[in-house]
Amino acid sequence: MTAENAQIQGHAVNGVTEDEDVVTPWIVTSNNDSGIDYDKLIRKFGSSKIDDELLARFEKITGKKPHHFLRRGIFFSHRDMHTILNLYEQGKPFYLYTGRGPSTHAMHLGHLIPFMFCKWLQDVFNVPLVVQLTDDEKAIWKNIKIEDAITLAYANARDIIACGFNPEKTFIFSNLEHIGNNPTFYQNMIRIQRCVTFNQVKGIFGFGDSDPIAKISFPPTQAAPAISSSFPFIFKDAKVHCLIPCAIDQDPYFRMTRDVAPKLGFPKPALLHSSFFPALQGSKTKMSASDNNTAIFLTDTAKQIKNKVNKHAFSGGQATIEEHRQLGGNCEVDTSYQWLRFFLEDDERLEQIRKDYTSGEILTGELKKELIDILQRLVAAHQEAKSKITDDVIKQFMVPRDLGFVSKMK
Amino acid sequence: MTAENAQIQGHAVNGVTEDEDVVTPWIVTSNNDSGIDYDKLIRKFGSSKIDDELLARFEKITGKKPHHFLRRGIFFSHRDMHTILNLYEQGKPFYLYTGRGPSTHAMHLGHLIPFMFCKWLQDVFNVPLVVQLTDDEKAIWKNIKIEDAITLAYANARDIIACGFNPEKTFIFSNLEHIGNNPTFYQNMIRIQRCVTFNQVKGIFGFGDSDPIAKISFPPTQAAPAISSSFPFIFKDAKVHCLIPCAIDQDPYFRMTRDVAPKLGFPKPALLHSSFFPALQGSKTKMSASDNNTAIFLTDTAKQIKNKVNKHAFSGGQATIEEHRQLGGNCEVDTSYQWLRFFLEDDERLEQIRKDYTSGEILTGELKKELIDILQRLVAAHQEAKSKITDDVIKQFMVPRDLGFVSKMK
Repeated sequence: MTAENAQIQGHAVNGVTEDEDVVTPWIVTSNNDSGIDYDKLIRKFGSSKIDDELLARFEKITGKKPHHFLRRGIFFSHRDMHTILNLYEQGKPFYLYTGRGPSTHAMHLGHLIPFMFCKWLQDVFNVPLVVQLTDDEKAIWKNIKIEDAITLAYANARDIIACGFNPEKTFIFSNLEHIGNNPTFYQNMIRIQRCVTFNQVKGIFGFGDSDPIAKISFPPTQAAPAISSSFPFIFKDAKVHCLIPCAIDQDPYFRMTRDVAPKLGFPKPALLHSSFFPALQGSKTKMSASDNNTAIFLTDTAKQIKNKVNKHAFSGGQATIEEHRQLGGNCEVDTSYQWLRFFLEDDERLEQIRKDYTSGEILTGELKKELIDILQRLVAAHQEAKSKITDDVIKQFMVPRDLGFVSKMK
Repeated sequence: MTAENAQIQGHAVNGVTEDEDVVTPWIVTSNNDSGIDYDKLIRKFGSSKIDDELLARFEKITGKKPHHFLRRGIFFSHRDMHTILNLYEQGKPFYLYTGRGPSTHAMHLGHLIPFMFCKWLQDVFNVPLVVQLTDDEKAIWKNIKIEDAITLAYANARDIIACGFNPEKTFIFSNLEHIGNNPTFYQNMIRIQRCVTFNQVKGIFGFGDSDPIAKISFPPTQAAPAISSSFPFIFKDAKVHCLIPCAIDQDPYFRMTRDVAPKLGFPKPALLHSSFFPALQGSKTKMSASDNNTAIFLTDTAKQIKNKVNKHAFSGGQATIEEHRQLGGNCEVDTSYQWLRFFLEDDERLEQIRKDYTSGEILTGELKKELIDILQRLVAAHQEAKSKITDDVIKQFMVPRDLGFVSKMK
């Protein structure tokens, strides 16, 4: 029994002892001041570290310098990424799959991470991408109206499209709308549901006897898009490999999927796991869309961005200017620096900032200013791109259609 | 807490003491020689007996003599049938819903009972009927291929249509095919799944922790057709009452449905429950499609019918002709007589046979001959009708469409 399977067999991933981090699709908390211990998580989940060897191979095969999310360990863990590189090397097809549970609030910067990364992967590999909007999950867990959940899915689709995805190669769908328009998808849900017992979802997700059966039924819905036959209009009956970039908290779904896929005659999906984007207040918790001050929203104005960073971004600096000049700042816990790792692409500039802040050369206010400038530009550019996404454009992305994939297969 | 609700709250319907009958959607057995104690079942399930007063009211309001299934207590129990009669009296709309789990074998006579009755109800009330073919349920419980389950659903649809349903007012659908073509249906499944906990389905259906989640997810799929909004092409957004004729073993699904429907703003479905059609070997168990000799199949020849009845029909007669003439036969346990109650419409003729067999006037062979003649005619007529059901006719019944209902509503 591999570590991966041990968890699927019911040794609770979410059954935690007191000093352990908790990482499930619904709860992410750490008891350590330095936040989640990602190396420990890799051992616990049985995944593999994204190491220098993998990055070197990535660069060699694709001819592209790895994305700074990869270079900086923001995407830090994987499953079977070598298989995907093998396929690419051999000119064989695969596709990307990611998803999002539409939020009742506007999307925030943390939500952009997987999409920025997917956009880059799509450009590098030139492969189709399917994006599942789990509005059903939101309707179930947050008990919001079905109609409202669908509306949120469409609102989120607009933000996702604004990340610049190729309309020729990207299919975005709302579960609540699409599953009732795709018999094969529903049939695959049933096929997956047959392979998973209540004991297993109890072990993997921590469901209990008093949970509504809507929750118990849901995991196969998130698994289905990793089975290429769920999208006959894209893949016909080809059994195509799937690569899923996602935050590590979604891994339980895909451990389950990897257990089931071979039973249905399909390859296990490969995965690329990201760490969590820290809240403005620090890295102990995931940024939350439901607390206005922990996040920068994609709808925030330049002024709001400036105020939030200045007021709420946890500082690794010292109490006084004198102490700071003398002792220097702590980049490890400084949110502004940590956020720059996500959004400042220039490695040299980032390193310079790190050195200067650590030595006390620059003050927290200067560091914050650096971040504010970048975020203001990023959010303004996003808002500008979003303003051009008409309802027709959204419809274009969300219509089930051929993505020019099957015709290109041998 | 009503008796009805007590079961929904988790006091196991299927949690039986040793001397109790077991009646669940998957197991029907009795430890009594006289078979299931239906009066006890009414008390246990918290339904109401179909009594003379209800039948008199039925006749008064519809102007039709109640069907012999009603007159003879074959449909013996109900929930809220008075509500349906009130609606009919007031010229208000309702619809019929019944279903069938398509069998791997041919359909048998017992399977015809709810459809013969629905056909009659449709004629009397002139209302739409929806027929759910739970091919997903079969795929889950019998672990047969999804594609094969759909094929079975279509095969069964042909037999059902041969019962003479009005094509203008009848919609038949395969779950595996239709749910992926009807977003509202899927959305209602989620709405229902949200209202039911694992504890509840455990109590109602006896599911356990090692059951696949496909089983746990299924009950809302059978509940959804009782919510009129599941069929927007038939009912638009009208909240229409539903009447479900079914065998009593299906009641657990609809107790659950009756609990949930008001939470979704819909009326509780009304029910008419039938007793079980006895096996040729006697009334202790339900006739089974998987044992060739317990049933007369709709595909049997006249000769097979004759041989099966003569060879396997349990006799209530005496060991010798002399004893039979002296002591008479026992109609209560005689399968041939019991089957005549289902298929011989003429009350006087049936009563004459009962008297003559009880007194010993007629012998078992003569009684069997009576049944054989009726069954041969019935099955031949069914086969004749079925031979005329082309694939196009099946398609006509299974296309989602307006059944001329909404336009007639006030």
